[in-house]
Amino acid sequence: MSHPSIHGIVAYPVTPFHPEHGGVDLAALAQLIDRLITAGVHAIAPLGSTGESAYLNDTEWDAAAEAAINAVGRRVPVIVGISDLTTQNAVRRARFAERAGADAVMVLPVSYWKLGEAEITQHYARIAQAVGIPIMLYNNPATSGIDLAPELIVRLVRGIDNITMVKESTGDIQRMHQLMRLSGGAIPFFNGSNPLALAAFAAGATGWCTAAPNLIPQWNLQLYEAVCRGDLDAARRVFYRQFPLLQFILKGGLPTTIKAGLRLQGFEAGEPRHPLLPLGEMAQGELAHMLQDLA
Amino acid sequence: MSHPSIHGIVAYPVTPFHPEHGGVDLAALAQLIDRLITAGVHAIAPLGSTGESAYLNDTEWDAAAEAAINAVGRRVPVIVGISDLTTQNAVRRARFAERAGADAVMVLPVSYWKLGEAEITQHYARIAQAVGIPIMLYNNPATSGIDLAPELIVRLVRGIDNITMVKESTGDIQRMHQLMRLSGGAIPFFNGSNPLALAAFAAGATGWCTAAPNLIPQWNLQLYEAVCRGDLDAARRVFYRQFPLLQFILKGGLPTTIKAGLRLQGFEAGEPRHPLLPLGEMAQGELAHMLQDLA
Amino acid sequence: MSHPSIHGIVAYPVTPFHPEHGGVDLAALAQLIDRLITAGVHAIAPLGSTGESAYLNDTEWDAAAEAAINAVGRRVPVIVGISDLTTQNAVRRARFAERAGADAVMVLPVSYWKLGEAEITQHYARIAQAVGIPIMLYNNPATSGIDLAPELIVRLVRGIDNITMVKESTGDIQRMHQLMRLSGGAIPFFNGSNPLALAAFAAGATGWCTAAPNLIPQWNLQLYEAVCRGDLDAARRVFYRQFPLLQFILKGGLPTTIKAGLRLQGFEAGEPRHPLLPLGEMAQGELAHMLQDLA
Amino acid sequence: MSHPSIHGIVAYPVTPFHPEHGGVDLAALAQLIDRLITAGVHAIAPLGSTGESAYLNDTEWDAAAEAAINAVGRRVPVIVGISDLTTQNAVRRARFAERAGADAVMVLPVSYWKLGEAEITQHYARIAQAVGIPIMLYNNPATSGIDLAPELIVRLVRGIDNITMVKESTGDIQRMHQLMRLSGGAIPFFNGSNPLALAAFAAGATGWCTAAPNLIPQWNLQLYEAVCRGDLDAARRVFYRQFPLLQFILKGGLPTTIKAGLRLQGFEAGEPRHPLLPLGEMAQGELAHMLQDLA
Repeated sequence: MSHPSIHGIVAYPVTPFHPEHGGVDLAALAQLIDRLITAGVHAIAPLGSTGESAYLNDTEWDAAAEAAINAVGRRVPVIVGISDLTTQNAVRRARFAERAGADAVMVLPVSYWKLGEAEITQHYARIAQAVGIPIMLYNNPATSGIDLAPELIVRLVRGIDNITMVKESTGDIQRMHQLMRLSGGAIPFFNGSNPLALAAFAAGATGWCTAAPNLIPQWNLQLYEAVCRGDLDAARRVFYRQFPLLQFILKGGLPTTIKAGLRLQGFEAGEPRHPLLPLGEMAQGELAHMLQDLA
Repeated sequence: MSHPSIHGIVAYPVTPFHPEHGGVDLAALAQLIDRLITAGVHAIAPLGSTGESAYLNDTEWDAAAEAAINAVGRRVPVIVGISDLTTQNAVRRARFAERAGADAVMVLPVSYWKLGEAEITQHYARIAQAVGIPIMLYNNPATSGIDLAPELIVRLVRGIDNITMVKESTGDIQRMHQLMRLSGGAIPFFNGSNPLALAAFAAGATGWCTAAPNLIPQWNLQLYEAVCRGDLDAARRVFYRQFPLLQFILKGGLPTTIKAGLRLQGFEAGEPRHPLLPLGEMAQGELAHMLQDLA
Repeated sequence: MSHPSIHGIVAYPVTPFHPEHGGVDLAALAQLIDRLITAGVHAIAPLGSTGESAYLNDTEWDAAAEAAINAVGRRVPVIVGISDLTTQNAVRRARFAERAGADAVMVLPVSYWKLGEAEITQHYARIAQAVGIPIMLYNNPATSGIDLAPELIVRLVRGIDNITMVKESTGDIQRMHQLMRLSGGAIPFFNGSNPLALAAFAAGATGWCTAAPNLIPQWNLQLYEAVCRGDLDAARRVFYRQFPLLQFILKGGLPTTIKAGLRLQGFEAGEPRHPLLPLGEMAQGELAHMLQDLA
Repeated sequence: MSHPSIHGIVAYPVTPFHPEHGGVDLAALAQLIDRLITAGVHAIAPLGSTGESAYLNDTEWDAAAEAAINAVGRRVPVIVGISDLTTQNAVRRARFAERAGADAVMVLPVSYWKLGEAEITQHYARIAQAVGIPIMLYNNPATSGIDLAPELIVRLVRGIDNITMVKESTGDIQRMHQLMRLSGGAIPFFNGSNPLALAAFAAGATGWCTAAPNLIPQWNLQLYEAVCRGDLDAARRVFYRQFPLLQFILKGGLPTTIKAGLRLQGFEAGEPRHPLLPLGEMAQGELAHMLQDLA
């Protein structure tokens, strides 16, 4: 039931915007993806939360999805975030991503009105029926406004054929323990809360879905490698070194902090879209210091 | 600083969809608005949460805004909900509404990423600068994901000229007491949480922003009239009569329950958009019973 | 089923401590109660949260209960707070209070370990069986650590004969609406959250359980009188005048702020017991200002 | 600054009550402690939450403390929980424990009224000044009603000489990461939330404060040993085997579930005190099944 090739460090590129006209900078997106793959990440996930997918119009979204998939060029798996407020447009995006060559799609049940279990189930089922590629179910109540309990997640994975992976971003390690327990270890789960990286790997996570590799891919990869070796002491050491940065990017908002960090590293990805504002000057100083410490 | 003519029962029409093709049913929208005005409501607020604004594309939104404003035909004030995820599109909608004849616009800081105070302030300021009509600031963390503290609300109202009214939907009466205390009673506030209607009027609310008049306008109006007379006993009696329905529509989701209720009353407004589902059969029975009790 | 004579302003005296030796100052307690009754309050409730009942040993508690009941001298009803961590000692206190002449006892399910419904029910049932006087069920999750849902409260009142009144201190007006709805208005409820006083009376509360009369009895009584006359405008005016003080005593902790206020008014009630500390100097200044404004 | 000998599995014995008269069963307490030490636990912590300390009167508490310390007989360190609602009685208990031979005392800031930082600090300072032995600061908002932020914990440990260890029971792994970060790894911390055992050890916890060894000491010890070897795979395997039981005892309440489990294992420790009730029959069956699985 699992999709063997998706594992390890799943990197979430930001969506660069042109400094002048503010449109999506497809060339910069391709360069950023290339940089991530060169650094060694195990998969690329464009148009997630970090990719400001929620702030793109459909034309922009389509162009970015296509450009990202092409930039990856089958060197690693590519998982496209296709979440949208209406089921209809989420289905449209999923089909578009599949046709453009995505290996999987990631689906967060974003909502305006709270959704009941039947509504969530139908939303996932319709998207799943529309495509033939695997789906990564994504739970992140802080951005979606809806919390999928482990029991519901297990029902969805068991009931809908091509949901094969779960990304958990509540930041509560017990959710992962519960997924393991309820599924008898049969459902591959990925951690999406950066400061939970060590605990999640200890708990048996298949991978770490993270925007951190935009800035510090080597540290993220070293953590995964230590875990693969079963070397807890090394994993702990490597984790605590990167922990301040992981906290910082979570607290400051990923598009805001990652774009600021890329600029500090000389990679111009523009600024996040309004209502988001660029990182303030004092926080930029703090971030520069952290990046230097990890260079 | 206040806008004298907006007060009392501010009715939120649903956005009807064609039973067949699912597009916005502009004729039904106009009929529904006519029905509300005939019933005696004091203002009309299309394209709010109840109006499934979040599930319309821009073309649909523009058509619905224009049709609603024309249907009101200056008989009562019309306040258009123009909230959108990007500041740019919220500005565009606000301008469109103003040109189409809206008396005011309502702005909820919907978000994907949590917004800081500077981001919220800039979002409101840019919308306010783009139009000449009054703005109703709207706080509803349950749908927007962002909670505006009374202190921040007062700063925004004082700092941005054309924010002249506040709609509070947290359901916490202390927010209203705080607004009264912090502003010395100078900021007109409206209640947006249906089961809080009695407490909010007791606390001095200028009006009640509600979808309930789609179904039971006479009960909503009677509550307001009792409050205007200063008749607490009558207000309490009238409130408790409609309280079960107010709880029901909040719990079941406004588009879902109101559309079901309209159908029960013989007014066809279609169904809410996916991922929302129509009201289940048992709940329909419960609703029919409540409507009969209040008929 | 209700107990007709308990209504209106139910005053909670602090438990004064001797400035020197720190023991309970029974003479000051009697004077304070006399002052409250002279001011016109409708009932006296010693040994509640405000009375630092949780910080007294059994000998002190017994002496204070007896002294308070004697000081009231049947001029108004007296409701003794008998809550304790073990059922056994709560029963002992309830019996003691009854023998000493209490008209009713108030029971909060204080706990160390969270209690399930069966445990809560048994706790109340054992206390109720041990006495013949009415019981006021008290819900205050902020101090007890346990939240009694309206549904459970109604089951307890219906199932246990001498539970005849409910004190609700969650500060959520919907709890009172629910009690009204679920009981068809048959259960008298009292508000125990000071800043909710206006909303609770609007919702039909029988009384207000409050420590505020230690400092501003006339304002509390005027609010109740306006409500009894059904005069909403007067009730609102009187409420907002005292609202800052009600917020202040809630936020600062009742024993701490009330004892500071009494000292400012020339009534020496000592200081709260460690770990509680006396009110800081700046807050004392703020309180003095508020009391002057309401003098 | 740390206390080198306290580490590993810190076992929390229940306080047995006589099946007939309900008093503390000192002989059974001594036997239970003996059983724990024989099983290999690294420290004994009587009169914690599990020990129903909150439900004992002072005479019982003193007798249990003395009996427990004597039963340990210096074979392993003994840490006595001395928490009480008043600072005065917490000081008294701390002195008693020291005189009776305790190696350390554990202090939870239990409260009725919420405590501010100055009140918490003074409470700890007064207890610390009263004894010469190390103090384990204990944070458990679910039972104490007060949450100590990592920043405050670090200030208390740095500011008060004999606070040398921290027990964290929020169940949030980020608290431990923060303690590590803020103290530069200098403060030994213990995990007090059973289902967090694996994550806490991964994060660098010095020990695990747990009631589980009353029932399954060998599984708890094996987890610690795997962690000491740095063997992540073994730690994970051993953790997931005991995870259902760890969840079960947390959810059902420790005194309730542990006493039921001991009875199932043939060790009579009586029942928890009212208002706590013995474990229901169905839950007993579930527990029996889990214990068999781990036998």
